[in-house]
Amino acid sequence: MNLESFFCPKSVAIVGASRESGKVGNTILTNIIDSKYKGKIFPINPKADKIQGLKCYNSLLDVPQDIDLAVIVIPGKYVLQTLDECNEKNVKAAIVISAGFKEVGKEGAKLEMQLVKKAKEYKIRVLGPNCLGMIDTACPLDASFSPSFPSAGGISFISQSGALGTSVLDWAKFENIGISKFVSLGNKADISEEDLIKYMEDDDTCKVITAYLEGVKDGRKFIEVSSQVSKKKPIIIVKSGNTSAGAKAVSSHTGTLAGSGRAYSASFKQSGIIRAKTIKDLFDYANTFANQPLPKGKKVAIITNAGGPGIMATDACEENDIPMANLNKDTIEKLKEFLPAAANFYNPIDVLGDAPADRYQKTLEVILNDKNVDAVIIILTPQTVTQPYKTAKAIVEELKDSKTEIPIITCFMGGAEVEKGIGYLRNSGIPNFEIPENAIETLKKMIEYSEWKQKSAPEFKKIKADKESVSKLFDNCRKDGKCELGEMDARGVLKAYNIRVPKAELARDIEEAKEIAKDIKFPLVLKIVSPNILHKTDVGGIKVGIENEKELEEEFEQMLWNVKKYMPDANIKGILLQEMIQSKKETIIGINKDPQFGPMIMFGLGGIYVEVLKDVSFRIAPITKSDAIEMINEIKTIKLLKGARGEKPSDIDSIVDVLLKISQLVMDFPEIIEMDINPLFVKKEGEGSIAGDVRIRIGEN
Amino acid sequence: MNLESFFCPKSVAIVGASRESGKVGNTILTNIIDSKYKGKIFPINPKADKIQGLKCYNSLLDVPQDIDLAVIVIPGKYVLQTLDECNEKNVKAAIVISAGFKEVGKEGAKLEMQLVKKAKEYKIRVLGPNCLGMIDTACPLDASFSPSFPSAGGISFISQSGALGTSVLDWAKFENIGISKFVSLGNKADISEEDLIKYMEDDDTCKVITAYLEGVKDGRKFIEVSSQVSKKKPIIIVKSGNTSAGAKAVSSHTGTLAGSGRAYSASFKQSGIIRAKTIKDLFDYANTFANQPLPKGKKVAIITNAGGPGIMATDACEENDIPMANLNKDTIEKLKEFLPAAANFYNPIDVLGDAPADRYQKTLEVILNDKNVDAVIIILTPQTVTQPYKTAKAIVEELKDSKTEIPIITCFMGGAEVEKGIGYLRNSGIPNFEIPENAIETLKKMIEYSEWKQKSAPEFKKIKADKESVSKLFDNCRKDGKCELGEMDARGVLKAYNIRVPKAELARDIEEAKEIAKDIKFPLVLKIVSPNILHKTDVGGIKVGIENEKELEEEFEQMLWNVKKYMPDANIKGILLQEMIQSKKETIIGINKDPQFGPMIMFGLGGIYVEVLKDVSFRIAPITKSDAIEMINEIKTIKLLKGARGEKPSDIDSIVDVLLKISQLVMDFPEIIEMDINPLFVKKEGEGSIAGDVRIRIGEN
Repeated sequence: MNLESFFCPKSVAIVGASRESGKVGNTILTNIIDSKYKGKIFPINPKADKIQGLKCYNSLLDVPQDIDLAVIVIPGKYVLQTLDECNEKNVKAAIVISAGFKEVGKEGAKLEMQLVKKAKEYKIRVLGPNCLGMIDTACPLDASFSPSFPSAGGISFISQSGALGTSVLDWAKFENIGISKFVSLGNKADISEEDLIKYMEDDDTCKVITAYLEGVKDGRKFIEVSSQVSKKKPIIIVKSGNTSAGAKAVSSHTGTLAGSGRAYSASFKQSGIIRAKTIKDLFDYANTFANQPLPKGKKVAIITNAGGPGIMATDACEENDIPMANLNKDTIEKLKEFLPAAANFYNPIDVLGDAPADRYQKTLEVILNDKNVDAVIIILTPQTVTQPYKTAKAIVEELKDSKTEIPIITCFMGGAEVEKGIGYLRNSGIPNFEIPENAIETLKKMIEYSEWKQKSAPEFKKIKADKESVSKLFDNCRKDGKCELGEMDARGVLKAYNIRVPKAELARDIEEAKEIAKDIKFPLVLKIVSPNILHKTDVGGIKVGIENEKELEEEFEQMLWNVKKYMPDANIKGILLQEMIQSKKETIIGINKDPQFGPMIMFGLGGIYVEVLKDVSFRIAPITKSDAIEMINEIKTIKLLKGARGEKPSDIDSIVDVLLKISQLVMDFPEIIEMDINPLFVKKEGEGSIAGDVRIRIGEN
Repeated sequence: MNLESFFCPKSVAIVGASRESGKVGNTILTNIIDSKYKGKIFPINPKADKIQGLKCYNSLLDVPQDIDLAVIVIPGKYVLQTLDECNEKNVKAAIVISAGFKEVGKEGAKLEMQLVKKAKEYKIRVLGPNCLGMIDTACPLDASFSPSFPSAGGISFISQSGALGTSVLDWAKFENIGISKFVSLGNKADISEEDLIKYMEDDDTCKVITAYLEGVKDGRKFIEVSSQVSKKKPIIIVKSGNTSAGAKAVSSHTGTLAGSGRAYSASFKQSGIIRAKTIKDLFDYANTFANQPLPKGKKVAIITNAGGPGIMATDACEENDIPMANLNKDTIEKLKEFLPAAANFYNPIDVLGDAPADRYQKTLEVILNDKNVDAVIIILTPQTVTQPYKTAKAIVEELKDSKTEIPIITCFMGGAEVEKGIGYLRNSGIPNFEIPENAIETLKKMIEYSEWKQKSAPEFKKIKADKESVSKLFDNCRKDGKCELGEMDARGVLKAYNIRVPKAELARDIEEAKEIAKDIKFPLVLKIVSPNILHKTDVGGIKVGIENEKELEEEFEQMLWNVKKYMPDANIKGILLQEMIQSKKETIIGINKDPQFGPMIMFGLGGIYVEVLKDVSFRIAPITKSDAIEMINEIKTIKLLKGARGEKPSDIDSIVDVLLKISQLVMDFPEIIEMDINPLFVKKEGEGSIAGDVRIRIGEN
């Protein structure tokens, strides 16, 4: 992978450069020149001699010097030919602005496939097609047709929507938000989000990677790259298209509850990606991450000159589960030395409405020395004697003096009165928020990311399992032409992965049944066993709570009679006697295959919790132990497992164990399409879990 | 109530007017003059002859003309004396800017009480004390010490925080948001939010009432006034201090789950108040409500020149439960006539990245004629040939031409490129949002408010009940010195309000028990009855599932033996035989008294749903039938009552019935402090509900 030629090319050719103002081929050439690009620029246009004072060439092949990057702006149908010329000329990178590919339908898709094929053959990396181009403010180079060129800074933005890109660039320029790189992905025929994220990992001008995505190209690669890069620098993403319906017809519980939105959420969590709900949130976060250090802990101190906004900030902290720092006694004593008596010396610290700049500064100085404080929010409302600009300067001065490593976020609230102060803060790297709530939400994201960075790298431990016997079971199943395993086979799969199943044995007649019952012990469950019967309940083929031999005799005969009545032709292998699990909680563990991310694991409480409350959690396989613990704790009804209402806690460790085994099972056997352990009986702490029932559906090998 | 003198006084005196710049008494005088107030201005200051060219008086009594409004800016301790002079001079309204009252502690609180007493005696209405003053842009009059005077418009803003007021006014001026009235509430010694809301109901310059509140003074009056005014114009409120802990020691379930946050939420719902989470949201909503008509239905059409933001908007619609309008066939045919072939003719309508202004206009024209469309969102991103300003003008022109009554919200996304267009839209009354998500959220609030306005006025039907016998039961209980009713008495209260309780009768010995059992029928529940035993389970005093006479004999004796063993001195009145309710859902109905709003009614499913999931809903009593229906439907587990998993639906009508009876009970008997019907057994549709157990705690009459 070589993306350097995109971002720091020594020379750029514009294939389809135009003299006509308003044409894309003209805008791009103008943008390259206007961006003060220092390399060589070669406009290509057989119908022109000179454009914008630059000599124009007939074709790439006529250019007498080396070309690093070609920007292609000609009609789609001519692009393949240009790629041939790129190859001949040894061009290493191409931006295909041209439309007319996958986005216009079948014919375009064919053309795009040919484009990819050629690009691979020629080892040319291609951005696009059907994109806005890209901008590198560090180079500098504006190889896009965006109307705006932003100022340089630490935020890189990858956009799957070109039009959104133009809005963001225009807005960033307006708000003086510094951009490192902007890349419009277009159709992602070759270069995709993970290529760029990977490249940006080592790009020193980029402090924060941000993206607007409508989908990812390769889910597993995306997780792999992102989870590695996010340990180094923050990745903030807006993902749209979350609520789109269009659920396919699926037969399992897990399938019904899964879906693309769940898969993306899970993948983001597992990759340490910071998710923003809107583009505005994305830049709020990015701007703060780019300019402020990460908090080392969660405790925040709030300094304010107004009670109301102080309460709002406190509310927001509680809502976001951010604790208010308990100030040291020393701190409070020091504050009392200079703050007026009517001030509030406790957190939130109210320096009062008449606070001049130096009162803010002294307060900040004292707070920054308090080891209980991990982050500071400074609120200012413009009252009669307030000095917004002076206060801004005082804050910046104090931060310089103290050399603090604590993040500081301000919230100067108002309009004209605070404008200059906010500008000064921003230019000094202190992000300002219009309202306290947004400041606190951003801080929350910083805390979460800080925790992610501190987490050790994911570890996938190999669990001992009898893979061979599972292979055989699957092969047999496929031989029979089925895609769903029978009950005994499915239990066999679990056993091979050392997942406990209830004691059970097949009885061909009542005498065998009586013998087996002595071994398994009452109470028992009876289940009819027949390859022809899938829905046992419908034919009276299940009976629970058999308490003694007498009941066993009665119910055994009754069941055989039932089944014969409903399905006289069924091939009956016998009746399964199964241990009845008592004093337990019913949970569910499921597997569903996501088209983007592959097997997803689901966990939830069984019964109404999964069906009515949809209280489940998802992760993409494979999962680590900490993923498993997280996904169990994520369900809203977790208290029921931890022992609500005076009950003893359930054996959560054993659920973790089963989750990890299932994770390995689906990684070992990609042919598993769907799987539900429902219920997984979880007994009391120390007593383990038992898979009560399991369904497995497999596809081709 | 007479607040006219505040907002349209013919003359204003400033007691404490000052020559010294920077002093509040100077700022207020300057603000009054600068606001171009047309009435007479009388500065009062014994130490000055003239201030700002105006003749200065020694005291109010020296002013030779009538004074409507006095603005008092002198130290708190002199305020009472000034009020005496106000009375003598027949001043009808006073704004007390001065601090030093309730907010400084006990002494101040005493002073404030004296102030209120005098004000009442003199029939002078007082705003404050400890406030920023007030602004009326229509008069015009700026009787505040805010640094900013906003432009005139339709939004009135009431603020419990003066400092927040300064921020908001500064910001409103900056963003050119038109304000009608601004009122700083201060300590609310006399004039409170509901006085102002009531006044603004008939104020024609005010189209939208907004407020920042930390609490309300009189909960019930607040609901009464707000629910009336909100039928006429929207009331939008930010309420802070929502998450404050400090829950008191409470003994009932309802008490544990109640709390101030729940009470405010309920009261806002019952009053049709639009709640904003932040001040920014508040003004987003207010500005749209003030300028756009309400939608008549919920269906939205989206016009965009960019796919990405179109998807974002669609996502936001789905999240907010706003359906995308299905366009008429006619509409689509008409769109096909002029939109390029690559456009999307279905909703969201993509007019493509190269759309000039007239393409937007034509599209809007067609859409506005589609009867399936209740609201339109127009998205624009500034691409190469986009014409933001021209498009803005085209939109405004189209709206004028079509005379539409459909609300239009725009989302021109960007910075400098779209600034002029946004300005034009704003000046034409079309609110613009930076991102589609905020536009959709605002539209959601409009839809909700529109539905509220269409709802008929609340109706409180009187239910027949035997109040007298309840009075007697309560009196008896108080005579005994208890505050908690015994089981039999509590059941008596329910019976008096025609709420079904299980059949039950007291048996003093086993012979009586056998007779009673014949009447009630097995299965039965046994409960010990003794005034000394509160926790029956602890002494083995409860037994469920008595199936026949034999079991009855055994368990009757066993229970007597149990109780004698644990509590040999207990005065045992006998054992209660009670009908055992089968095939039912357990719900809970509770009453808790909120200090601000009085009795609150809670509803939820029983057991873990209430204890672990806290899945309950609240309303302030009294409630209407539609309140009751709403609160039942509000719980997340409502599906369990409606018949999930193939079950028959529960008798929801009978829950509504019990809720209404309980609502009347607590209104009839304000001495009820706490009450839990837990469980309320709800049987299948048509079979009713039965109160399984009830606890009632009462206070003094």
